[in-house]
Amino acid sequence: MPKVLILHGPNLNRLGKREPEIYGTETLERLDARLRTKGEELGLKVETFQSNHEGDLIDRIHGAEGEYDVLILNAGAFTHYSYALRDAIASVEVPVIEVHMSNVHNREPFRGVSVIAPVTRGQISGFGVVSYELALTAAASLGQQVQ
Amino acid sequence: MPKVLILHGPNLNRLGKREPEIYGTETLERLDARLRTKGEELGLKVETFQSNHEGDLIDRIHGAEGEYDVLILNAGAFTHYSYALRDAIASVEVPVIEVHMSNVHNREPFRGVSVIAPVTRGQISGFGVVSYELALTAAASLGQQVQ
Amino acid sequence: MPKVLILHGPNLNRLGKREPEIYGTETLERLDARLRTKGEELGLKVETFQSNHEGDLIDRIHGAEGEYDVLILNAGAFTHYSYALRDAIASVEVPVIEVHMSNVHNREPFRGVSVIAPVTRGQISGFGVVSYELALTAAASLGQQVQ
Amino acid sequence: MPKVLILHGPNLNRLGKREPEIYGTETLERLDARLRTKGEELGLKVETFQSNHEGDLIDRIHGAEGEYDVLILNAGAFTHYSYALRDAIASVEVPVIEVHMSNVHNREPFRGVSVIAPVTRGQISGFGVVSYELALTAAASLGQQVQ
Amino acid sequence: MPKVLILHGPNLNRLGKREPEIYGTETLERLDARLRTKGEELGLKVETFQSNHEGDLIDRIHGAEGEYDVLILNAGAFTHYSYALRDAIASVEVPVIEVHMSNVHNREPFRGVSVIAPVTRGQISGFGVVSYELALTAAASLGQQVQ
Amino acid sequence: MPKVLILHGPNLNRLGKREPEIYGTETLERLDARLRTKGEELGLKVETFQSNHEGDLIDRIHGAEGEYDVLILNAGAFTHYSYALRDAIASVEVPVIEVHMSNVHNREPFRGVSVIAPVTRGQISGFGVVSYELALTAAASLGQQVQ
Amino acid sequence: MPKVLILHGPNLNRLGKREPEIYGTETLERLDARLRTKGEELGLKVETFQSNHEGDLIDRIHGAEGEYDVLILNAGAFTHYSYALRDAIASVEVPVIEVHMSNVHNREPFRGVSVIAPVTRGQISGFGVVSYELALTAAASLGQQVQ
Amino acid sequence: MPKVLILHGPNLNRLGKREPEIYGTETLERLDARLRTKGEELGLKVETFQSNHEGDLIDRIHGAEGEYDVLILNAGAFTHYSYALRDAIASVEVPVIEVHMSNVHNREPFRGVSVIAPVTRGQISGFGVVSYELALTAAASLGQQVQ
Amino acid sequence: MPKVLILHGPNLNRLGKREPEIYGTETLERLDARLRTKGEELGLKVETFQSNHEGDLIDRIHGAEGEYDVLILNAGAFTHYSYALRDAIASVEVPVIEVHMSNVHNREPFRGVSVIAPVTRGQISGFGVVSYELALTAAASLGQQVQ
Amino acid sequence: MPKVLILHGPNLNRLGKREPEIYGTETLERLDARLRTKGEELGLKVETFQSNHEGDLIDRIHGAEGEYDVLILNAGAFTHYSYALRDAIASVEVPVIEVHMSNVHNREPFRGVSVIAPVTRGQISGFGVVSYELALTAAASLGQQVQ
Amino acid sequence: MPKVLILHGPNLNRLGKREPEIYGTETLERLDARLRTKGEELGLKVETFQSNHEGDLIDRIHGAEGEYDVLILNAGAFTHYSYALRDAIASVEVPVIEVHMSNVHNREPFRGVSVIAPVTRGQISGFGVVSYELALTAAASLGQQVQ
Amino acid sequence: MPKVLILHGPNLNRLGKREPEIYGTETLERLDARLRTKGEELGLKVETFQSNHEGDLIDRIHGAEGEYDVLILNAGAFTHYSYALRDAIASVEVPVIEVHMSNVHNREPFRGVSVIAPVTRGQISGFGVVSYELALTAAASLGQQVQ
Repeated sequence: MPKVLILHGPNLNRLGKREPEIYGTETLERLDARLRTKGEELGLKVETFQSNHEGDLIDRIHGAEGEYDVLILNAGAFTHYSYALRDAIASVEVPVIEVHMSNVHNREPFRGVSVIAPVTRGQISGFGVVSYELALTAAASLGQQVQ
Repeated sequence: MPKVLILHGPNLNRLGKREPEIYGTETLERLDARLRTKGEELGLKVETFQSNHEGDLIDRIHGAEGEYDVLILNAGAFTHYSYALRDAIASVEVPVIEVHMSNVHNREPFRGVSVIAPVTRGQISGFGVVSYELALTAAASLGQQVQ
Repeated sequence: MPKVLILHGPNLNRLGKREPEIYGTETLERLDARLRTKGEELGLKVETFQSNHEGDLIDRIHGAEGEYDVLILNAGAFTHYSYALRDAIASVEVPVIEVHMSNVHNREPFRGVSVIAPVTRGQISGFGVVSYELALTAAASLGQQVQ
Repeated sequence: MPKVLILHGPNLNRLGKREPEIYGTETLERLDARLRTKGEELGLKVETFQSNHEGDLIDRIHGAEGEYDVLILNAGAFTHYSYALRDAIASVEVPVIEVHMSNVHNREPFRGVSVIAPVTRGQISGFGVVSYELALTAAASLGQQVQ
Repeated sequence: MPKVLILHGPNLNRLGKREPEIYGTETLERLDARLRTKGEELGLKVETFQSNHEGDLIDRIHGAEGEYDVLILNAGAFTHYSYALRDAIASVEVPVIEVHMSNVHNREPFRGVSVIAPVTRGQISGFGVVSYELALTAAASLGQQVQ
Repeated sequence: MPKVLILHGPNLNRLGKREPEIYGTETLERLDARLRTKGEELGLKVETFQSNHEGDLIDRIHGAEGEYDVLILNAGAFTHYSYALRDAIASVEVPVIEVHMSNVHNREPFRGVSVIAPVTRGQISGFGVVSYELALTAAASLGQQVQ
Repeated sequence: MPKVLILHGPNLNRLGKREPEIYGTETLERLDARLRTKGEELGLKVETFQSNHEGDLIDRIHGAEGEYDVLILNAGAFTHYSYALRDAIASVEVPVIEVHMSNVHNREPFRGVSVIAPVTRGQISGFGVVSYELALTAAASLGQQVQ
Repeated sequence: MPKVLILHGPNLNRLGKREPEIYGTETLERLDARLRTKGEELGLKVETFQSNHEGDLIDRIHGAEGEYDVLILNAGAFTHYSYALRDAIASVEVPVIEVHMSNVHNREPFRGVSVIAPVTRGQISGFGVVSYELALTAAASLGQQVQ
Repeated sequence: MPKVLILHGPNLNRLGKREPEIYGTETLERLDARLRTKGEELGLKVETFQSNHEGDLIDRIHGAEGEYDVLILNAGAFTHYSYALRDAIASVEVPVIEVHMSNVHNREPFRGVSVIAPVTRGQISGFGVVSYELALTAAASLGQQVQ
Repeated sequence: MPKVLILHGPNLNRLGKREPEIYGTETLERLDARLRTKGEELGLKVETFQSNHEGDLIDRIHGAEGEYDVLILNAGAFTHYSYALRDAIASVEVPVIEVHMSNVHNREPFRGVSVIAPVTRGQISGFGVVSYELALTAAASLGQQVQ
Repeated sequence: MPKVLILHGPNLNRLGKREPEIYGTETLERLDARLRTKGEELGLKVETFQSNHEGDLIDRIHGAEGEYDVLILNAGAFTHYSYALRDAIASVEVPVIEVHMSNVHNREPFRGVSVIAPVTRGQISGFGVVSYELALTAAASLGQQVQ
Repeated sequence: MPKVLILHGPNLNRLGKREPEIYGTETLERLDARLRTKGEELGLKVETFQSNHEGDLIDRIHGAEGEYDVLILNAGAFTHYSYALRDAIASVEVPVIEVHMSNVHNREPFRGVSVIAPVTRGQISGFGVVSYELALTAAASLGQQVQ
């Protein structure tokens, strides 16, 4: 059974409390539960991790090598400047799917730039929590190729 | 049963013949068939249309109002400069999902700019033909909300 | 009696249906009727044409040579990138008046750039349907000089 | 009877003497007389004011509140950098129509930038003295709405 | 008793009348009275001056040499382009404190640029009329050093 | 006998009528005849096509695969923004020679940018109608390699 | 009694040891003591925290919700690139006051850009340790409104 | 005897008091006296005028038409943004010589941009008060041509 | 018999030895011989010159006045920055044809900029050694006009 | 015996596993051992530290004051955006040598920008693991000066 | 008697033959003679040198140390890119006066940039051959200070 | 015994005489002697060459092919614009090490750009004359690989 690690970047622990007009009212805990269930439906073992610390996310990406088949990453604001995260992704063989809940292209201009996109497998943005579910579906598809 | 119109922009009729290392070897005809089947699985009626003419795509977007529940649009190279297509999307109430087969962020710099993204619902890119399938899954999700 | 051709560019067929908070609720058909009437008051024979196809607009501009005394052009989103339309205007002797219904300078930044303005006679923007009427008044003034 | 104040910015007192190939040979005095007459035809009481001093124009815009129904402003070169004039316009409720005699888009690049356009009602440029007359026609139209 | 001159730049005479959602409903007259009182509490003699004329502000800055211990300057829109004001500040020994009522960084981009900031002692922005009071507190602190 | 298709982009139908100081006085019909003759001299079968419609040019480029040995393309103003045309060129194996009659580098700055040049075989510009003849000579040379 | 948390960003633990010509000779410990005393004078309970870790600062901002009435933040160099910090500020309801000891506008150009300013309440910079005291005064003022 | 008007822009009244390491210790009064004497030596009648008001300088430039043979202009900081001053120069036939005391190219970057240079006859900068004397010598040379 | 001088710029003496995947395996000596032969076929007397010294190329361009009917110039990397070469071309009446062997538009971005193109008659690039032959054909055409 | 601390930034723990075509196959452990040996040869006591956490690197730089004679820093991707690291370097007296294994100038453009270079003593890049050895040699040279 | 070396950069040997509408009809030989005479009048020994070779000009600047009191340099097109010339000027103690015959600010934009201006004493441009004479006058003034 | 050629670019002949606060007081002759000695210690035969002429440096780089094992190049100011030098480096197989004595990143911005870095093996900067010695050490390391 393919294993997927979902990484939530900075401020996603505030989900449901932060700017609900943009991010909805569901908390991160409930979202994670929902994604584990969705993973099971798709035949995927899903684990999740959140951190506001760039270094912790890098450590987890490194640790994913040989442990997971696919990474799903919502890098939050690190998306826009963390070349260190980019290099971490490039340093592992596990494919990484980039996810955003909001449509980053109709907000502040800085959100339109992703420094990690060139080294991820693909990007999904704008569908709220469904963005993560689509990423799981994509992961299942990639997982099939890997297996 | 929600109806979805998939719009393929310029040069996508060359699918399977054009740069297969980027776009794969499947032809547009076979892709369309596959997407209709996928749509049925998801409870969606899927129709498709391809054109190399910007004006034809605009006409079809206008005509979609009241006819379809969701549009899926791979605007090809129009993505990068057709503000007319952008205005067409903004002029209808039907939600539009932007799709790209390749990871537009690790190719030429001009492909990293989408002038239509700010007015689409969300974007999916980099998963080859699976990008379209994910868009259909997203459409099914949007369709449920609409119904 | 001087003849004026009013050219409406892409998405203007959606007038009255599209973003009424920006463009008002009057349809293109009614606008055209109103402009023909206004033209009569000013002693001008007014014809109108709308297309979402850049090539059709270019063809009509070429065909205007020797047929019309003044062109009034609302190029819609083509305003911002169609150098082909610009060359078409430069290739005929008929003076062209550039019109915009909305104030293009307090919307998205890309709308502040007109690639056709350097080859038009003058520009009128921001007065809604009155922009067209002012253009007809200007055309009457130009027409008098031409006659 | 609606009242209109026409404000001429820096160097417009040189009209008729300055670069006649661009601005024509009519003096400001004669232009003002012509515009007052035109105003009468349109049922507007027209007053005019010229200054080379940014502060004087700002003072007049402030003073127009409650005194005039529409302002017509040819800000001359202030158009391109006077954010103070922009704020003055934004600080009053009277609608302001921006006017230029020449086609600012086929001259030096700096003339293509208007820092005041985002806070004016609309813009008219390129028709020589007729630009002002069109602005009066527009003012009459706005005045009707105001009355 | 240290003397402080508060300089209000263009359009601040419109305070209380202009865009109250940004600048509040207090008039300049009442603000000045409040600041004089606040000054007394802090042991400062406060005088105020407002002008829409760049030259008048420059003249007052020059005249402050030897007359005042600190200048507080809300340069309004001159902040963004008046290098002449900048040079005036640099030409005197009196320290200048730059003040803005609104948070200039979440409004139009041009307001994020201050050409005078490099030659002022410090900047305070975003606290409404309290911005001025904080500047007076800062002036009292600077005044103590000067005395 | 190698076959060559010469594609003329937007506004080239105005040749001989449009800006003769830049483009000369020869009409497109006469130019085409001249190029067919020149082709015969070089042992090439020459066909020509002109359109103001971006989509038509794309369709013709696609259709050239397997039909022609070399394409000669004067894309007119599409040169400067049509990434769709660029992708069309990249999607076929037929070599494309880019041609311009005028020296695009001593006119407006936008004419110095060619978005199609990176995917064409080579470029020839500035020699008037001779530009096309040189392209035919180049095509003959390429044709020999292909044969 | 309103509670205020003062957050010191990276390298502020070097205060008194680092570049004294810019930052003065007072250590962070003494500054914090001074600010607690100042807070008491103003009727504020002041706590302080310093970290060189972006993630720790984000965690503390999140934890401030419901615990403090105002945050005072000297983000040090994070000011210029930490969009994650910006999102953290935007994710809480507590108002944040941005503070800098030096005049960031007459140093290296990169210090003139604050990515957090658009989401803070106001900014104070250039007054050395007095910048913090002014922020406390501002906090007292905000606190009164909140209470 | 040719007449020359020397115009000193903003802050030049501070000469001798302002930043003496850049501008020297001579006051404007003494400089003007020196230039009148120098003028006499060269057979020129020299008059001088200083203002911190942009509008006053514009008025004086207009008034110079027919009154003076040459203008010498040190526009101070207006050099870098006053397009109104530029238009004033372009609106008169009197040749204008641009003068700067300091070497504007080894100071802040904004001083390297002169918006008036394109419409002046020539520029002299970097020689302190000698810059003015060289301008007088140049004026004498131009005056000879005019006479 | 018209005379043509072919100028080879820096590093072209390395032809055949340098990056053969870009420039081919033919040496400069053999290329020159080939071009002399080609010239004879076209009725042109061809001479050639190579230098790595900018000044030598400038001297030869100056010396060409009255000696040659056409210059063919492959300026190598000088193309991208030598404004001195540009001025040399502009200072003579002999027409200059700009040649590049490689397609400069699909290599490093700096190669897409030619500072000499605005003053040359036309440009030919991308056809390897055939680029020179096409330039000779163009020269023959220009020569006929000159004779 | 001078002491040197070698700091490895983010992702360098992946050495030998990450992109071996760029970074070689030697692991960080073996590299560190090799550098300690090299240090001994040069009379230097070498210690090493790696972290993916920006804050940890800052803490170690602060702690180096008075403990080490030279720092050698390969900041990895932090090189390109961590102004906090830059300020940390500026806040200590210990000289810092910047090291890169790859030639950062022939990779992605963002790698050509180092925000820390202005405050380091010197830079060495492009020699693989030899880059570190050269830095040690440089450190020995600096150490001699310090001793 | 102070000694002055006048250095003429590339293409100035074409004076009188090159673009006479810009540079006049006087040859370099006659100009040099005129400048020697002018020098004598001013009590200066004048020598002149022209080269199209950047290296020769650098060599002469180096050789001027201890030989000449002032250098006058018209660097021609090297002005716009030769940082090597700039460094040569910075490497000698002899003051250098930058001269241009034409008004470089109303020609092509590249001519508005001088990379040598920051290290020269002053600049004179736009007065034709008189520019050189003014530079000699300035040199006499500098020479007096030096002596 | 591997052979190394050290190339010194423009103005390095001024070493010891030029800006000693940046470049030290050692002359080029003494530096060269020191480097030859250092080379002997490292088992390298060292030759040196200096020129202010770009073409001479190019000629020497070409001539190094087959004659030297490594080139060490301090290109001086040519570093920042000489694409011809860059092409020369790319045209030979000999590895080139780029050297700068000063830290080019804390001086004028133009010094931060190296157009040759992408084609050199590595870069060393900021260590004064030690930069060259480190380059020799690197050359010895490369030489070992080559042998």
